[in-house]
Amino acid sequence: MSEIYLGIDLGGTFIKVGCFDSDLKLLAKTSAHTEAEKDAKTIIENMAKAAEQAAAKAGFAMDDVSAVGLASPGPAKYREGIIEAATNFPNLRNIPIRRMLSDRLSGKTIIFENDANAACFGEFVAGAGKDVDDMVFFTLGTGIGGGIINKGKLLVGAGDNANELGHIIIYPDGRLCNCGQKGCAEAYASATNTAKRATEAVEAGEKSSLKKVLDEKAQITCKDVYDHLKAGDKLAKKITDETAKALAILCINVLHTTEPARIVFAGGMIAAGDVLLNRIKDYFNEQIWHLKKETVEICFATLGEDAGIIGAAALAKQAEK
Amino acid sequence: MSEIYLGIDLGGTFIKVGCFDSDLKLLAKTSAHTEAEKDAKTIIENMAKAAEQAAAKAGFAMDDVSAVGLASPGPAKYREGIIEAATNFPNLRNIPIRRMLSDRLSGKTIIFENDANAACFGEFVAGAGKDVDDMVFFTLGTGIGGGIINKGKLLVGAGDNANELGHIIIYPDGRLCNCGQKGCAEAYASATNTAKRATEAVEAGEKSSLKKVLDEKAQITCKDVYDHLKAGDKLAKKITDETAKALAILCINVLHTTEPARIVFAGGMIAAGDVLLNRIKDYFNEQIWHLKKETVEICFATLGEDAGIIGAAALAKQAEK
Repeated sequence: MSEIYLGIDLGGTFIKVGCFDSDLKLLAKTSAHTEAEKDAKTIIENMAKAAEQAAAKAGFAMDDVSAVGLASPGPAKYREGIIEAATNFPNLRNIPIRRMLSDRLSGKTIIFENDANAACFGEFVAGAGKDVDDMVFFTLGTGIGGGIINKGKLLVGAGDNANELGHIIIYPDGRLCNCGQKGCAEAYASATNTAKRATEAVEAGEKSSLKKVLDEKAQITCKDVYDHLKAGDKLAKKITDETAKALAILCINVLHTTEPARIVFAGGMIAAGDVLLNRIKDYFNEQIWHLKKETVEICFATLGEDAGIIGAAALAKQAEK
Repeated sequence: MSEIYLGIDLGGTFIKVGCFDSDLKLLAKTSAHTEAEKDAKTIIENMAKAAEQAAAKAGFAMDDVSAVGLASPGPAKYREGIIEAATNFPNLRNIPIRRMLSDRLSGKTIIFENDANAACFGEFVAGAGKDVDDMVFFTLGTGIGGGIINKGKLLVGAGDNANELGHIIIYPDGRLCNCGQKGCAEAYASATNTAKRATEAVEAGEKSSLKKVLDEKAQITCKDVYDHLKAGDKLAKKITDETAKALAILCINVLHTTEPARIVFAGGMIAAGDVLLNRIKDYFNEQIWHLKKETVEICFATLGEDAGIIGAAALAKQAEK
């Protein structure tokens, strides 16, 4: 019988699990409530049940599963299997999550990885990066997560905190980031901060059709910004341009560092479509050096929300080989 | 008999060659004029003779040499062995330098690498990075060269142009860099641009003891800036602070990308000593995030001008294993 792998994506609201064959074909998928506010044991039980259900749905018992990949937000000591202080899990403080889940699943091998890294690896093995060896990945959501593939492998630094690409500083002494630094790319170009900059501009009195949104809903979302951009609003265009420019600078900076063949953007914000992608490319072409022609491709991810479970399963498979 | 390796550092003025044993102990060193303005054949002949002399000086014939490492400035197609358009070599245009040198040395294996990468690898195997696995290297000269060691290996990108760390943009729309980009770290913090910013400030009328230097010598060097800083000149302090801050931002950006355990600065500018190093560390501590305590060490290189030949020989040794 061929090998079976499970990929678990532990989110603040939902646990998603995919059951994959050895070609990383998705056989079955389940999801469950995380109950992130509860204790470690409950959260681990929720993961284990969802995992067993995913295997069962695909017609397998847990005994048939070769290994399990677990993707979770950080900070965590991934190599040691310990979740330290993930933002949305108030009770997961220095919890040996890898060992606890393995114990619950009869000693199954668990590969533990950062969720952005797992999604990056998913896009690399099965999505937008599947035909290259060197890739950089950005996920644009509340923050900006990152991942780097170098010669077919996820780049791992001296500790467990490489690939924090959203915290590359592009405007020294600029906007304050949640991390405490000033001028991080994330402070400008994440979905949340794109919306926030629009809100600040409207509140400061800039003329925009977004004012009506703020008045009626008390907030502006990133989707609102792109909707109003498409409808011709000038402020929405300015905000989008600033986001695209920050992302283009980020592309140039990672190009000059690890030199990927492809740069892949993922996350909720890519729903904006070509109106965003084309602006990123425009700024990239405007800002990049003239020493040589660059051939790096900038594109959007193709796997959507499944990237995390695919990547987690692929990492489990890679570790077993 | 133990293995012997040669490391060649091809510079615009001098060719330096070191002959090393299998523990990378330097047995003999030679240097020769490059004659960079001449044709490829002459330059290659100059390298070959210097290589033969280095081996002879250590008591060996070329037949005893296991492999040769050749470090040269770029841009070059290092993996293909072709020097494309290196700045100081007007006649080396698309020259298959690796094959030509190998032919001249009776088919000897030649490992061809970027000079900053070779110096980085030298510091990694025998200098400031010899006790870590993950390191980032900056060389501060006319420009800012870079190198990245990840898990004991020199990072190589999709082409031959990873590690162009001086061209990380830290001030979008800032100073124009020689590469055509605006706001590169190199445009602020290389030795040449540190001196240039001082000259520009004095010419713009800023009060400084450096004015006398400019009046008498018609130029200000980077060494002048640090000499006048030590003598208490305020403009020299301001220029140094700007350089140190740019380098600190660069450190933060590479930390969040490949997460080295150590960041090593090399090149002529480190002669400035602690007055520069301590300012870089101060700005790093001021600008770095608060999410977790960083343990990366920032220090100066220890091998001086030999880093290139040691690194080239070490790369030759690594390739032979």
